[in-house]
Parts: sequence; C-alpha cells; structure tokens
Amino acid sequence: MKKVAVIMGSDSDLPVVEKAFKVFDEFEVPFEAHVMSAHRTPVQVAEFVSAAEENGFGVVIAAAGMAAHLAGACAANTTLPVIGIPVKGGAVDGLDALLATVQMPSGIPVATVALNGAANAAYLACQMIALSDAELSAKLKKARVDAAAVIAEKEAALQAKLKK
Amino acid sequence: MKKVAVIMGSDSDLPVVEKAFKVFDEFEVPFEAHVMSAHRTPVQVAEFVSAAEENGFGVVIAAAGMAAHLAGACAANTTLPVIGIPVKGGAVDGLDALLATVQMPSGIPVATVALNGAANAAYLACQMIALSDAELSAKLKKARVDAAAVIAEKEAALQAKLKK
Amino acid sequence: MKKVAVIMGSDSDLPVVEKAFKVFDEFEVPFEAHVMSAHRTPVQVAEFVSAAEENGFGVVIAAAGMAAHLAGACAANTTLPVIGIPVKGGAVDGLDALLATVQMPSGIPVATVALNGAANAAYLACQMIALSDAELSAKLKKARVDAAAVIAEKEAALQAKLKK
Amino acid sequence: MKKVAVIMGSDSDLPVVEKAFKVFDEFEVPFEAHVMSAHRTPVQVAEFVSAAEENGFGVVIAAAGMAAHLAGACAANTTLPVIGIPVKGGAVDGLDALLATVQMPSGIPVATVALNGAANAAYLACQMIALSDAELSAKLKKARVDAAAVIAEKEAALQAKLKK
Amino acid sequence: MKKVAVIMGSDSDLPVVEKAFKVFDEFEVPFEAHVMSAHRTPVQVAEFVSAAEENGFGVVIAAAGMAAHLAGACAANTTLPVIGIPVKGGAVDGLDALLATVQMPSGIPVATVALNGAANAAYLACQMIALSDAELSAKLKKARVDAAAVIAEKEAALQAKLKK
Amino acid sequence: MKKVAVIMGSDSDLPVVEKAFKVFDEFEVPFEAHVMSAHRTPVQVAEFVSAAEENGFGVVIAAAGMAAHLAGACAANTTLPVIGIPVKGGAVDGLDALLATVQMPSGIPVATVALNGAANAAYLACQMIALSDAELSAKLKKARVDAAAVIAEKEAALQAKLKK
Amino acid sequence: MKKVAVIMGSDSDLPVVEKAFKVFDEFEVPFEAHVMSAHRTPVQVAEFVSAAEENGFGVVIAAAGMAAHLAGACAANTTLPVIGIPVKGGAVDGLDALLATVQMPSGIPVATVALNGAANAAYLACQMIALSDAELSAKLKKARVDAAAVIAEKEAALQAKLKK
Amino acid sequence: MKKVAVIMGSDSDLPVVEKAFKVFDEFEVPFEAHVMSAHRTPVQVAEFVSAAEENGFGVVIAAAGMAAHLAGACAANTTLPVIGIPVKGGAVDGLDALLATVQMPSGIPVATVALNGAANAAYLACQMIALSDAELSAKLKKARVDAAAVIAEKEAALQAKLKK
Repeated sequence: MKKVAVIMGSDSDLPVVEKAFKVFDEFEVPFEAHVMSAHRTPVQVAEFVSAAEENGFGVVIAAAGMAAHLAGACAANTTLPVIGIPVKGGAVDGLDALLATVQMPSGIPVATVALNGAANAAYLACQMIALSDAELSAKLKKARVDAAAVIAEKEAALQAKLKK
Repeated sequence: MKKVAVIMGSDSDLPVVEKAFKVFDEFEVPFEAHVMSAHRTPVQVAEFVSAAEENGFGVVIAAAGMAAHLAGACAANTTLPVIGIPVKGGAVDGLDALLATVQMPSGIPVATVALNGAANAAYLACQMIALSDAELSAKLKKARVDAAAVIAEKEAALQAKLKK
Repeated sequence: MKKVAVIMGSDSDLPVVEKAFKVFDEFEVPFEAHVMSAHRTPVQVAEFVSAAEENGFGVVIAAAGMAAHLAGACAANTTLPVIGIPVKGGAVDGLDALLATVQMPSGIPVATVALNGAANAAYLACQMIALSDAELSAKLKKARVDAAAVIAEKEAALQAKLKK
Repeated sequence: MKKVAVIMGSDSDLPVVEKAFKVFDEFEVPFEAHVMSAHRTPVQVAEFVSAAEENGFGVVIAAAGMAAHLAGACAANTTLPVIGIPVKGGAVDGLDALLATVQMPSGIPVATVALNGAANAAYLACQMIALSDAELSAKLKKARVDAAAVIAEKEAALQAKLKK
Repeated sequence: MKKVAVIMGSDSDLPVVEKAFKVFDEFEVPFEAHVMSAHRTPVQVAEFVSAAEENGFGVVIAAAGMAAHLAGACAANTTLPVIGIPVKGGAVDGLDALLATVQMPSGIPVATVALNGAANAAYLACQMIALSDAELSAKLKKARVDAAAVIAEKEAALQAKLKK
Repeated sequence: MKKVAVIMGSDSDLPVVEKAFKVFDEFEVPFEAHVMSAHRTPVQVAEFVSAAEENGFGVVIAAAGMAAHLAGACAANTTLPVIGIPVKGGAVDGLDALLATVQMPSGIPVATVALNGAANAAYLACQMIALSDAELSAKLKKARVDAAAVIAEKEAALQAKLKK
Repeated sequence: MKKVAVIMGSDSDLPVVEKAFKVFDEFEVPFEAHVMSAHRTPVQVAEFVSAAEENGFGVVIAAAGMAAHLAGACAANTTLPVIGIPVKGGAVDGLDALLATVQMPSGIPVATVALNGAANAAYLACQMIALSDAELSAKLKKARVDAAAVIAEKEAALQAKLKK
Repeated sequence: MKKVAVIMGSDSDLPVVEKAFKVFDEFEVPFEAHVMSAHRTPVQVAEFVSAAEENGFGVVIAAAGMAAHLAGACAANTTLPVIGIPVKGGAVDGLDALLATVQMPSGIPVATVALNGAANAAYLACQMIALSDAELSAKLKKARVDAAAVIAEKEAALQAKLKK
C-alpha cells in the first residue's frame, strides 16, 4: 500500500497532527511523519517531496500555521495529491493559515481541510488510497456506520437524560 | 478509468465550473456534470452520491456558493473523496462559501480548493485517479513542465519588453 | 399544541442548547430534543424532519457549529419553519457557523438567531406557535413585562450603588 | 388570514424588498409594505409595530442596511415573530447589516435571513402563517416540488448541452 | 455645567463603563448612569433621551454589545451629541458591536469610540462640554501634559532597566 | 460661532467630504476645508491643529482612507473634539480605515462616524457647537422633523405605487 | 550600486508592479524584473534568489496574490531583505494575499507593504540601499519635500475652488 | 555600525518587543529602545525620529497596537527604513493593528512584519544593516544554518519518538 507523508512545519504542531496518526493506525495505513519547514529548510522540503512518489508515498499531508506556505511548497514539487491542514494560532483566529493554504493558483491544488482538521486530512488521504484498495474502502464504509452508531448512542443517552 | 462527477448547486455556477471540464478534456479523464441542489433536491443528491461508487465514479466534485452545503451533503453520502469548490457571490466576498465548505466535522472531510477554483478541483481529482494510473500521472507531470514553460515564455516576453 | 423539535449536531452542543429547554419549560411548550448529524446520520435527519409535521411538530430548531449544515439540511426536508442556532467554536470566532447557517438559497429559508442564541431560538419558536395560541401569546407578552422589570431592578440597584 | 407587514428603512431598499412581494402574491398571502426608519421616524415604527397584532398582522419583516437596527426596533415592540433582512451596501460587503440584525440579546429574537434575502423572508413568513393554515401549507409543499422540477429542467438542459 | 448621561444596555456592561465614571470624577463633570435596554425597555430609552436636553444633559453616552442598537436608539431621539461605546463579547471579537454602533445612516450620527473605550467616551464628552467651559478646557489640556509625563516616566524606567 | 475645520488627507477624498460642506451650508455653520496629510505634511497638520482652538475652531473633522492616521494625528495635537471619517478604498472594503480611525488609545478619542459618513460628521459637529448655541440647536431639531417628513413622503409614494 | 530584483508571480501582476519601476527610474536605482512562480517554477525562484546577493542584488521585491507564497519563498532562500507586495484579486478583498505575505515565522521576515503597494515597495528598497548611499538618501529627502509641495498645491487649489 | 531605534507606544508592549532585543544581542547590533506615543507624546516622536539619522540610527522599529499609528508617524518623519510591529490586543484578534500599520499611502512605506513579530522586525533590521556590513551578513547566513539545524534536531526527536 502507498504510504502517506505527514509533514509539519514545526514540532509545536504535533498535538494537532497526532490526530491524523490515530486515524492511520485505525485504518492500518502506513505513514511517515516529518518536521520540515518551508522557510527554514526549504531544500529539504523540495527534495523530500520531489522524491516522495518514487519513495512509495501516495499522498502528502502538510500542516502549518500563520502564512502557511508548507502545503503549497509541497504541491509545487509533486503531482501527488497534497492535503493542507491550516493550524490555528496566528491572526484573526486562524484565518491567515486557512487563506494561505486554500487560495492556491491554478494548476497547483492543495486539498484543504478545516482549521486543525488533522483527523479529516487523514480520512481524506485514506479515501484517496482506497480508490484502488477495496479492503481500505470497506474499512472506511464501516467507520461511517460506526460513527452513525456513536451518534445513535449519544441520542439514546440524551433521551434517557431528558426523561429524568 | 474511474469517472469524476461534477455537481453544481445551480446552473448559474456553470461559468465557474466549466474550467474543470477543460482540464478533464485535456487529461482525457471521463466526467459527468450535473445540476443538483442540496436544498432543493436533497433526495437526488443523496441518491446520486450514494450510488456514485457503484456507478463507476472515483471522485465527486461539488460547487456551490453562499451557505455552500453541497460538498458536505455529498461527503455525508459517500466514502469517495469529495472536492468542494466554494463559489463567490454571497457575503464578505465569498468567505461564506469558503467557510461553509471547508469547516467540516471530523470523519466527513471535504477537500476544499480556492474560491471559484474549478480548474484546481479538476487537477486534484486527476491527481487522485493518477494514484493508480501511471499514464495519467505522466500527463500530470508533463503539464507541470508545460506550465513552467509558459512562465518562462512570459519571463522572456517581459525581458523583451523591458529592454525596449 | 404543536411540539418543537430541537436537533443538535453533536451532544457537545448540549450546554448551548439547554438554554432553549428552559424557555420551553417556562412557557409550557412541548419539545423534543435529539442528537442527529447532517453529515454522520444524514438519513436520520432527512427522515425525522420529513415526518416532523405529520408527527405533531410545528417548528424545527437546529444547532450546529463550524460548516453548520444542520439547519439547512432540515429546511431542505420540510416546509415547517426552521430556526438555526450557529454554535461558536470553529473559525473566526464563530463566523463560519453564522454564515453557513444564514446564507441560505432562495426558497429554503433558515430563521437564524445569534451565535449560541439558543434562548432566542426558543422564544422565536414560541412566537410562531403563539400565532394561533392566544394563551401562549399572553405569556410571551407577560415575559416582556417581566424582562423590563428585571432591567428596572438593575437600574434601581445601580442607582443605589452610585449613591454610596 | 393574518397579514404580513414589510417595513423598509429607506425606499432605496425597495428593489431588494420587492422580491418578497412576488412571493406573497404567488402564495396569496396579504401584506402591507411601509417605509419607516428606526432612526428618522422611531415613534412611527414603535407605534406601527406595537399595534400590528391588533391590526391583523401575524408577522413583521424588516429590511435595513448598515447599522441595521430596524428589525431589532420592531422586535422590541411586539411579540409577533420578526424577520430581519440585512441589506448589502455598507461596510465589509454587508457584514455590518448582517451582524447588526442577527446578534440580538436574549428575549428579543430576530429571525434573520441571508443578505438581501427578501424572497426567503417572505417564504419564512408564509411558513409561519401556514402553521395554522392547511391550504397555505399545501401551497408551500407544492412550491418545493416545483422548485425541484426547475432544477430537473436545468439538469436536463445541461445534459443536452454537454452531449453536443 | 451640563450633565452627561451614561446609559448601558445591561448591568453586565458596568465593569467596562466604570472607566468613564473615573474620568468624569477626575474632571468634576456631573453625570448620571442608567441601565436601560433598547430592546427590553425601548419606551424608557425613548422617554429618557427625548427629555435629556430639557433635564440638563448635554451629552449622551451609550454602551452596548452584540447587535448594539442602544446608541442609535438614543441618537434617534435627541439632537444632543450621542457617543457610542461598542462592548466586546458577541461575535468576531466585538466587530458586531462596532459595526452596529458606527454605521449609522445620514442625519443620525453616533460618535463611536474604540471597543470597550469607555474612558475615551468620557474624554470626548468632556471635550464637547469644554467647548463652552474654559475651566474644563484647561483641565483637559493639563491632563494631556500629565499623560505625556507618564510616558516620560515610563521611558525613564525603561532606560534604567536597559542599563542594568 | 466657532468654526469647524475639515481636513482631508488627499484631494481625492473631496467627493466624499463635500457632503459635509452641504450640511454646514444648510445650518449656516462656518467651516474651513484643508488638504493636509498626516504622512506627507505632518508638521503642517500638527501646527494647524495645535493652533486650531486659538484660531476660532471648535471642532476638527478629519477624513482619510487606508491606514487612516489623520484623525488620530489631529486628536494628538488638540483637546478640541476630533471627528474621524474613515474613507473606503483600501482593504477589506474599508475596514482598514474604520479600525485605524476608531481604535484610539485611552485619553485621545476620535469620534468616529460610518465609512464615507461625511454628512454625519458634519451633523455631529453641529450638535457639538449647538450645545452652546440655541439657534443652531433649534435648526437641528427642525432638520429632524424635515427628515421624518421626507420618510413620510416616501411612505406615501410607496402606498400610491402599491395601490396601482 | 546594488540592484533590486522585482519578482512577480504572474505577468498579470505587471500593471500593479510597474508602479515600482517608475520609482526606481526616478531615483536611478538599477533593477531587474522577472516573472517566476513559487508554485509553477519553484526551482527557478530558489536558484535566482539564492544567487541574488552574489549577482549584485541588494533587495528582493516579490509581488503575488491569493495564497501569496512568493515573498516567503524568496525570504527562505536569502538573507537579503525581502519586500512583499500582496496583490488584490483573491478572497475577502485581498486579505488572503496580505495575511499570506505578512504572517511569516520567526527568522524569515518579509517586509510587507500595503495591498498593491508597489510604489511603496520601491521606496522601501531605495531607503534600504540609501543606508550606504548618501546621494540616494539625499534624493529620497528631496522627494519628501516635493511630495509635501504637491499637497500644498492641492491645498491651494482647494482654497481657490472654495472661494468661488 | 548604525544603530537601530526600537520605539514602543506603551511600556505594556515590552514583553512583545523584548524578543527583538535578544536578536540584536545575538547579532551584536547596537540598539536603543524608547517608550514614546504617537498620540500622547507626538512632538517627542517627531523630534526623535527626525534626528534619528543624524544621531547614528540606520533603522527605526515601531511597535503599537489598536489604531497603530506609531510606525506611520515615524515613517512620516524620516527617510530611514521604518519597520512596523502590529501588536495584538485590540479588535478582531489584532487585525486593527495590522491594517493600521501596513496600509500606508504612497511615498511613506512601513515595512510591516507579523502580529507581535518583534523577532522578525529585528532580523529585518539586521538584514538592512548587513547590506553594507559583510560580517553581519555572514552572521545572518550562519543563523539560517543554525535554524535549519534546529529543525533537523526536532525531526530526529520526532523520529525517535515515533519509533517507540
């Protein structure tokens, strides 16, 4: 199975990004995580991402805050799908990172998820890999059923609470 | 090859969405386009998207403006990757559509591209399909080289202009 | 009397939504509260809301945060009035939920109240029901008089404080 | 049948508000429209709205731009449901009017619709009146079917266009 | 000397508004403070403000948050200068209150100060009264000199700190 | 009678500012208008404003766009009341000018009016001067009556139109 | 004298950027202009900027819109000062480009000017070079005097106009 | 070596600004820090900045919040490069200070860094001075290598952690 590369601009983004790791473990999708900075180590980013396809990666996830260039810098160096996680903490409650991640020019897309949306970045990567992996696709479908069941349990708990 | 479904909430979104069609034609990726509304024809959206995988689709693209629920409504009904195109025209210069598309809850991702970013939605869909299609992957790489060449031509034109 | 359905996208919205319950208890308006998600349990939402009128409901209230589609998903499935409560917690201090709730397309309105405005959602639902319920209407008018009296008490307390 | 009062802060709001008139005519719901200003004629607003219920009105719709106080001023003077239409044209692409309309304090709700959303204000008013008017309720349901049919026609037109 | 009326929409605004009281005490400008709500006690607001000039007031200050209509409601009922203090706490970090206070229609101005800017509202009121009160004008000038001296002291403290 | 000084940062602001001139002419309040820039001619601004009180001015109005410092620079140099008109045309639909004008530090207030709100700046200046000028005060009260009459005429015109 | 490199992400930015050329011509500061894209030609950007100091450049100016990464990508590859010009045209009236340019992480600054502020980018570059060039410094001082004279002329024209 | 002047509008900005001091100490660049207010001590600001070049300063850094005029007031009084640090704490999560600092009119640039970006303001000042100081330039290049090494260490730590 193709691996997912998870790149974060700073190790301070780890608490946000770890939610993606859990999703990959749940779905048994192999991943690597790396700290690399679009601005402090631009050569490493370019080299790693340029070689990503050759090195067995199928999807690149990049998490960064403020003027969040990391996902775009990844997208500029590969034709693999790149998923961007804008991280809160800069200006206007994270709007800086969101706009800097999503507003990419034509030809170089970044698949942007919600602010701090690391779990969804992982789900999205799994969905992409599942396009050619029926087993993973089945797991994703089962997870949806499970998520609906969790809502149903919460609904039941609410009804029990309201009856008191 | 898996098809791409392009759904627009209103036919008034067609001028934006057509830029995706050109990309699909360029890369010879089969697609279907449909007008369906998350709010006016919610049953059709749910039925179409629920059956999309079975019907040979690999990726769903949804374009909508204002309280842009269409991409989320698609994502709720499939585990195929769903790409959202927020369309300008509502409030705060399109920020309504952007936030309504990207800020999805955990488990139901929407891969969001820039406001009116239909071309990038198509590129992103192609990148996903190319994960298991070496020929398409090669075309995407060639397109990057071509895009760089266009920039080089514009650079040459600028130099010529500045020398005058 | 027609019942009010209060739907929340997640049980984490309960602390916000409970303020509506108090209002309904105060005015003796029957209500049901449910946890249902526009994205995780879309079929349940559609089924519940489609049958709401038949099941004795007169108004639907939906509370959700982030890309808050729940109220819109309700409105798409009924011609009963639907009230949306945007819940804080996503991006830009809740602006995502507000815009995703209020910016509905023509024909499918959502009566939107303030961020976290669950009490006002309940007052608004009561006002709608009171259109054909003179007793409830009288209670609402009395509540206004009481609210003015509370302000008058606070004014008196301030004058007492300032005189010291 | 109860009438709907449509109040606009300025006759310059008429082109926006007229979309509501069409909806009322379509559904044969009686309405009156008035130009009254929360700031230039506050006494008239207070008097008109205070007497609205007595004068046969069931719903009040108020349209205003900028620091849009009109809907709130109406809501302060009646326990009838008040619907607010924020009108574009002030600052930040209409965000001033939207926030000034929707962010009402507890006890005095304004049912806010989208920026310039006069048609939806009218639909919402009709939905409220239809709570005790089965015929109007049936008309609203039929309008939904018609709206879905319009989408279906547009879908057909798109398919015809794409086949060429 | 003319008095200043300080009106707050809720007693929860008192911690913000009290900064104005200190300024009035410092400059020996008489003031009254009142809790009155544009929405819960609109008649009281209209009556108080309409009679304010007659009752010896020269300036009205109104503090309110969210859809902050109070200053505008005051301005609609008097030709005395009205100063608005937008109070933080609603949406988008107080932008709702700021826009709802400042974006007044032509003919009915509200002199708006910064978010939570109660001290400046009081300074501004003093400046207005000082237009016909040379003694107060002299006090205001002296306060400027004192404020500059405070900065100079802080500058000296900083230099002392940096030398260590 | 004290004069009003109207300062604009650029002669391109004249079309906005001229609306203030009309108000002053209507109320027969003497004014001077000047082009001076907080950034290009800071010494002139400081000199003019420092001497304004001595030279017979009672109020200073400053109009500027973008990083609109002009009103603040005036306020820093006088204890006369300073009114700021934020002018549209910079970023985020004028929000830059609004925030740069209104968010003044404690002790140095700027009475801010709406974006491009030159007429209201003039009304506000007249209200300040009218504090010690009964004749001007009477004119302001009459203008309110006239404005209400204009609304009444528009209301009559609307009723006539609707009856057709 | 050290040269200034002006890089634009697209030749569509030329109308904005040309205002910088005029400033350089006026001050006789040598410059080169290039079209290079952070995303379409990332290698060229990295190579050009990495070699810029060696090739006689003293300052790099980068102009880009939307998720404006270009200035940051330049800054990541040189310790020369980098000036960023955010270009309007993306989302929220250019706020995307502004935030993506200015919100750089520690250690990699971008000196950001106003939206479309190409002239100021050039002035700023000249100011930097003038730190070791007394003649250029003198020209800059003279330009300020000239700019003040232009304001004085406009002031004179206004006075002439008002006297009529 | 030319000195850097660091001016803060209030000593409450010191915790933000001190990050600049560390950078200057690291690079052995002489600096002075001063508390001066554009609004409370405008004459001192004008005098200090007007004489800055003569007194051996090469760069001026100004830090201020809210309607952050300080950097602009400095820029208006010198042709030395002026760097602006917008400080958080006013409205809309600091957007007021950012816009008030960056949106300067043509001819009077302020080199704006990120909200609270004092370290970057210092780096930028060092980069400017290094244009004519090879030793400082070398130190800046070494700091970039060191910063990359820090990222590499964090990457190693992450890999060690993930292997467990």
